[in-house]
Amino acid sequence: MFVDRLIDAVKEKNNPSVVGLDPALEYVPARIREKAFERHGKGLKGAAEAILEFNLKIIDAVYDLVPAVKLQLAFYEMYGIDGIRVFQETARHARSKGLLVIGDGKRNDIGSTALAYSTAYLGKVTVDGDEKEGVFDVDALTVNPYLGWDGIKPFIDDCASFGKGIFILVKTSNPSSAQVQDLVTADGRSISEIVAGYVEEWGRALTGKYGYSSVGAVVGATYPEQAVRLRSIMKNSYILVPGYGAQGGSARDAAAAFNSDGLGAIVNASRSIVLAYRSQLWKGLFGEEEFDKAARAEAMRMRDDINKALHTGEEHR
Amino acid sequence: MFVDRLIDAVKEKNNPSVVGLDPALEYVPARIREKAFERHGKGLKGAAEAILEFNLKIIDAVYDLVPAVKLQLAFYEMYGIDGIRVFQETARHARSKGLLVIGDGKRNDIGSTALAYSTAYLGKVTVDGDEKEGVFDVDALTVNPYLGWDGIKPFIDDCASFGKGIFILVKTSNPSSAQVQDLVTADGRSISEIVAGYVEEWGRALTGKYGYSSVGAVVGATYPEQAVRLRSIMKNSYILVPGYGAQGGSARDAAAAFNSDGLGAIVNASRSIVLAYRSQLWKGLFGEEEFDKAARAEAMRMRDDINKALHTGEEHR
Repeated sequence: MFVDRLIDAVKEKNNPSVVGLDPALEYVPARIREKAFERHGKGLKGAAEAILEFNLKIIDAVYDLVPAVKLQLAFYEMYGIDGIRVFQETARHARSKGLLVIGDGKRNDIGSTALAYSTAYLGKVTVDGDEKEGVFDVDALTVNPYLGWDGIKPFIDDCASFGKGIFILVKTSNPSSAQVQDLVTADGRSISEIVAGYVEEWGRALTGKYGYSSVGAVVGATYPEQAVRLRSIMKNSYILVPGYGAQGGSARDAAAAFNSDGLGAIVNASRSIVLAYRSQLWKGLFGEEEFDKAARAEAMRMRDDINKALHTGEEHR
Repeated sequence: MFVDRLIDAVKEKNNPSVVGLDPALEYVPARIREKAFERHGKGLKGAAEAILEFNLKIIDAVYDLVPAVKLQLAFYEMYGIDGIRVFQETARHARSKGLLVIGDGKRNDIGSTALAYSTAYLGKVTVDGDEKEGVFDVDALTVNPYLGWDGIKPFIDDCASFGKGIFILVKTSNPSSAQVQDLVTADGRSISEIVAGYVEEWGRALTGKYGYSSVGAVVGATYPEQAVRLRSIMKNSYILVPGYGAQGGSARDAAAAFNSDGLGAIVNASRSIVLAYRSQLWKGLFGEEEFDKAARAEAMRMRDDINKALHTGEEHR
């Protein structure tokens, strides 16, 4: 069961944080870019190969520290077929290093189509009666709830069949998330609160040994007051918290999504880790070539930052 | 401008309907499947090649009849890299035949990530300062509004820069769409009505020569009463109407999304066209090998069905 594997890894590494691999080509140090362009041309393949080397080095630098990586599909699709191949190779390498892989694709559609997405990322495709290996085969996928239950059910069925997980968007970290998610219905509940209720309900059948469900939620670190309320609605859902670091959320903000057992959430940081080598904090200590060491240093700092907030900051609970 | 190209094509072909290419391998006639397996093996590549041949033959059979095809990304992603290559080749072939291509991906994310999706489907990626050709390069993309304006803006910017369009999910055709989209806020409006208001507002700057905007909406044929109301909120938005045919929507239902000028909407049918050769109506006339002829016959029937509903059925307006 996904959620049990996730919690086991969080406990083993004493770290509820996740490294987001959302690598635009501009993030990759010049020498890696140039080497890839020499070998593969200055096109989509060269760009994708540069990103692959960058990703693999970051994974090698952090795999013993973090339980999971989150791969943002958009940044791979942007480079076409070559980019998607690099998504696949990055995911494979991460899994070979014992990391859980979260595919951040925010997929959604009507039931018959949601089933096709679920097959691609969580299930196994069948070719004329022969069940094949998983196609993209991530451990968990983010999904969007705008279509309601029958757009979510195929993913949940595959979670049950293949030991996978999903994180359903509840309250996203971006500035305009209020436009739909904070709308208040006649009964006084917001859309995000109502969706949180669905997540809790839909996830009950997939509860694991720690009392948490493999049907999780996304709640941004940028809205800590709402996170407290949403946490209370979804007591047994694991929450993926984006928005820490570059988007402005602090460890104390992220802590709002956790339960008092110190579990119940994982916190993602993407740019603050993969671009640590350019940050005020680390750029004096690590050169551009040491981007992976800078990522490791920042991943350790983030782990300690969040653990400290969890042990000392009870303000939000 | 996308919406003008779309309306020109609708007028020229006297047809507001769209063929949806959402081809699961099971839809492909046995002989095409077997031939593809012999050449490419009975794996993802064989499956993808079978689908490609199926798609190309359907395009060749309908391109003079319809203004556009809609490719459902999930059904290509399901077959991995090979499937995505077939998506790209299908889109390319359709465009070479003068068809507009709508990528049905329902993509969504926070601003910086939405920009990456938009670059992949509507814009042009830059590799170290060099602007490349469009990566997937469709004419329009479906997007999900759950994240609000800053998740939509990057797509709209690319619509303006590259003459593309988007269709924002407002009211989807599936049974459980009510769970989020029909929730009613304190001011008496439903979520789908509020999103419809956003679509109208966001699209104003992209209004073309016919008074319609390249920022369109998705409203399912399965909810005709709501379509009338949503149409009145989004007077100038082009509406993509799924749900005709296999999902149960009739031509009269779909007509609810049109304006009295006979414009303002396009109606998609996927399974009822690509699987026409198995339908009660056509299977006596066409054998499995004539799936393309059956698709053409059904596309003509659908065109006439919708045009008749537009000319006679004023019930919903």
